[in-house]
Amino acid sequence: MTGQYQKLMAPLAINSMVIPNRVIVPAMVTRLSGDDGFVNQAIMDRYVRFAEGHVGLIVVEATAIHNAKSGPLLRLSDDKFIAGHKELVDRVHGAGPSKIVPQIIHFMKVARSGWRQTLDMLSVEDVRAIIRQFGAAACRVREAGYDGVELHAAHAYTLASSLSRLNRRRDRYDGHTLEGRLALFGDVYSEVRAMVGEDFPVGVRFLADEMIKDGYTLEDSRLIALRMAQLGCDYISLSVGGKFEDAVYHEGRPLYPYTGYSGDRCMPGALYPALPHIEYPTQIRSYLRAKGYDTPVVAIGKISAPVDAERVLQEGRGDMIGMARQLLSDPDWPKKVSAGREDEILRCIYCNVCKQLDENFKQVTCFLWPKGALQAPGEDICADRPSWPDGAGLTARVEKGMVRLTWTPARGPRVLGYDIYRAEDQGTVTCIEAKKSTKFDDRTVLGGLSYTYYVRAFGEAGAPSRPSNSVRIDMPWAAPLAATAAGVTRSEI
Amino acid sequence: MTGQYQKLMAPLAINSMVIPNRVIVPAMVTRLSGDDGFVNQAIMDRYVRFAEGHVGLIVVEATAIHNAKSGPLLRLSDDKFIAGHKELVDRVHGAGPSKIVPQIIHFMKVARSGWRQTLDMLSVEDVRAIIRQFGAAACRVREAGYDGVELHAAHAYTLASSLSRLNRRRDRYDGHTLEGRLALFGDVYSEVRAMVGEDFPVGVRFLADEMIKDGYTLEDSRLIALRMAQLGCDYISLSVGGKFEDAVYHEGRPLYPYTGYSGDRCMPGALYPALPHIEYPTQIRSYLRAKGYDTPVVAIGKISAPVDAERVLQEGRGDMIGMARQLLSDPDWPKKVSAGREDEILRCIYCNVCKQLDENFKQVTCFLWPKGALQAPGEDICADRPSWPDGAGLTARVEKGMVRLTWTPARGPRVLGYDIYRAEDQGTVTCIEAKKSTKFDDRTVLGGLSYTYYVRAFGEAGAPSRPSNSVRIDMPWAAPLAATAAGVTRSEI
Repeated sequence: MTGQYQKLMAPLAINSMVIPNRVIVPAMVTRLSGDDGFVNQAIMDRYVRFAEGHVGLIVVEATAIHNAKSGPLLRLSDDKFIAGHKELVDRVHGAGPSKIVPQIIHFMKVARSGWRQTLDMLSVEDVRAIIRQFGAAACRVREAGYDGVELHAAHAYTLASSLSRLNRRRDRYDGHTLEGRLALFGDVYSEVRAMVGEDFPVGVRFLADEMIKDGYTLEDSRLIALRMAQLGCDYISLSVGGKFEDAVYHEGRPLYPYTGYSGDRCMPGALYPALPHIEYPTQIRSYLRAKGYDTPVVAIGKISAPVDAERVLQEGRGDMIGMARQLLSDPDWPKKVSAGREDEILRCIYCNVCKQLDENFKQVTCFLWPKGALQAPGEDICADRPSWPDGAGLTARVEKGMVRLTWTPARGPRVLGYDIYRAEDQGTVTCIEAKKSTKFDDRTVLGGLSYTYYVRAFGEAGAPSRPSNSVRIDMPWAAPLAATAAGVTRSEI
Repeated sequence: MTGQYQKLMAPLAINSMVIPNRVIVPAMVTRLSGDDGFVNQAIMDRYVRFAEGHVGLIVVEATAIHNAKSGPLLRLSDDKFIAGHKELVDRVHGAGPSKIVPQIIHFMKVARSGWRQTLDMLSVEDVRAIIRQFGAAACRVREAGYDGVELHAAHAYTLASSLSRLNRRRDRYDGHTLEGRLALFGDVYSEVRAMVGEDFPVGVRFLADEMIKDGYTLEDSRLIALRMAQLGCDYISLSVGGKFEDAVYHEGRPLYPYTGYSGDRCMPGALYPALPHIEYPTQIRSYLRAKGYDTPVVAIGKISAPVDAERVLQEGRGDMIGMARQLLSDPDWPKKVSAGREDEILRCIYCNVCKQLDENFKQVTCFLWPKGALQAPGEDICADRPSWPDGAGLTARVEKGMVRLTWTPARGPRVLGYDIYRAEDQGTVTCIEAKKSTKFDDRTVLGGLSYTYYVRAFGEAGAPSRPSNSVRIDMPWAAPLAATAAGVTRSEI
């Protein structure tokens, strides 16, 4: 445990499971599985990689509790799937101290016509079946040797549709009342708990804000979280948005719930500031504590700098740090941070290429990885850092309201790309972009400010070169059009 | 100046204008004007009412700088409109210490077919004309005797479309670069400033976050605000959302930019917590201060409790408090707060009936006002408070996951409605709803918590009765469905 990241690297007991540190990789679509729903080699490699990096808690991608048609998707809808999961769990446990739980999911039907099934179309028997399927799948989770299970009650899926303000049912699961909206989750939780026993960690992920018109906000999500704590959920992981209601329909393709604004917010890209959603875990956690529940809460949303992660924990804004895209890009983040090797992190720049791949039904990889790689590069492949023996030759010029940077290629074993660092008015230096080519146009610069840039080349495992030469630009400010006031009277206009 | 609200009631110099307190009513659509664009009696009454209530700065609704077709809308597109505005200004100045500025606007064409003109369809000549029209209108603003002018660069209108990340122009007003997106505002500001002179207050309203897919966020809006400060804007008023891009099209009706999610966020309703947008003025103001600019910033978004307003100012999260719906409901808010008569405020409950009226092209009034009233009730009409001489008979029962409240009608001169107050687990009491009838169903209650309710009747000017009897409900928690685990094996499912 390093002094600087004392909280981040502290273990945490979650029911019978003790996670070695506070870093959690939330469920991420990989599209690595086959259509058959079985665990395959690529899936195992993906999760083992997180274990090698010492991620505290690994949440396996959404795994279906039923047989409904879908694209490539892991399943636990039948006993035949258990063996594969068992192998996955064994390999992960063999690779390091990480704990691992799968996220189990029920989803409704979507058609290429744009039609989709909604909660109010389900019969009471359908709903009872869903409850039983959740219980049975959870039982298989335990049998496979997982350390716990996470119920998927977020985004566009069945349990989230029940929690939603847009739930149109009018029975036990009545969308008109908070209690009605909570009933399906309660029934599912109760079934799952009965199946797996009191000592088995059961977590949940749900939306702190639906981020859609007429959707629920923090006013409701505080109460939803409280119900989850009352029920006995062992941890609460948050997300926001990712709904069908504002999804963009592409003809001939099933609706994808991350194509609208709520999808933007779910996986906030480079346009968003760091930690855009930190108020959600802050408020929800403090509400739970005020009600006497110590249920751990996972903070989420563009948290990638180790100091930010530690501060979130120190300030009581969360108990764990959920980090999806940053851990995809570099699963060794926890190990590197813990060893004081922060500058070797392959930094996620939130370009959302991973999101685009998912949206286009392609295997999800990271833009920063070597071309064609299916997994994050290992640490062994790159002992030497890249360098510029003849100087980096970084130059900058202003053109058409942009700062245009160019530099020379670095040398070294498998140079993977370049991080661009910028300071505004000689303030804090931040990494604003990563490029694989040797040029970059900075289009978000304001005349009247000065900008100082340097780049660092990075190798396959993230180990960077020394900084290049730095260049400073005093951004000029184009004059407004000459006012016409002097020469024109109002009546002429 | 009261001790408790020292900052709130302190004057503020904005260029040559000194506002008597920090309460500002931002521009709100009234739909009270005729199609002719002239100031009429109803318009004057609306703004005089704010002056009677001692609102520090009154911003008159968006007033067109051009003649383009639209629904009822004030105009300053020709000298013939000046006289009406002069009368409005004189009446407001005669009614109290308030300052008054109009918000001047350019908007593009929308058609009932759903088509709308976008910035990239404008020729260079069109753009030059817009710049000149802004200058000419500003000149008329000064001639009418206004205390300053506000440039509308928010929501779905021309200047905001230029600032937007979705600006598709590729010339001087290039949407690819921040400088390009800022150029139109710079040209307009420079023209306006040349027209009105250095001593005339020129404020601006713009979006701190577009709240649409691929729109800009705080990352850009800090820089946009800085440019506005660099240019010399005398105050910066913020808003969020309200865009065409996610507006819901209703056949045969022109698109209305507050019908989508960004419209939800622009005027956050009852589902949102108080102060949902407070981070925007906080971050923008602190960025401006760090850069050496003391431009006043208006904080916005569901700020209606006097203690919240004062705290925002004390904590340096804003220099003025923008309050639209609360001041519509009760324009006497500043006067009542300053006189220690807080409990007489007609409290906005963010039901957004005003928003619905606007959306349906009807005159904008407040649900809390007497039926048929076009303006907020005056203070003179209701000296006596309502009362329940025989007791209020408040009862509560739990039914279908709701708490159903009923009470008896109060007596008194023109009882207008009832505020419902609730405390959760004997915590803080908050006003959760206002009703004109004598019943209310609370649908957002959680089993396992206790709720204490009382109601207060209020008269036309907000003066409330004493609290009714109070009732406490220990909300029961419906048991989840009996787990099937015991009796069912997995293979049966």
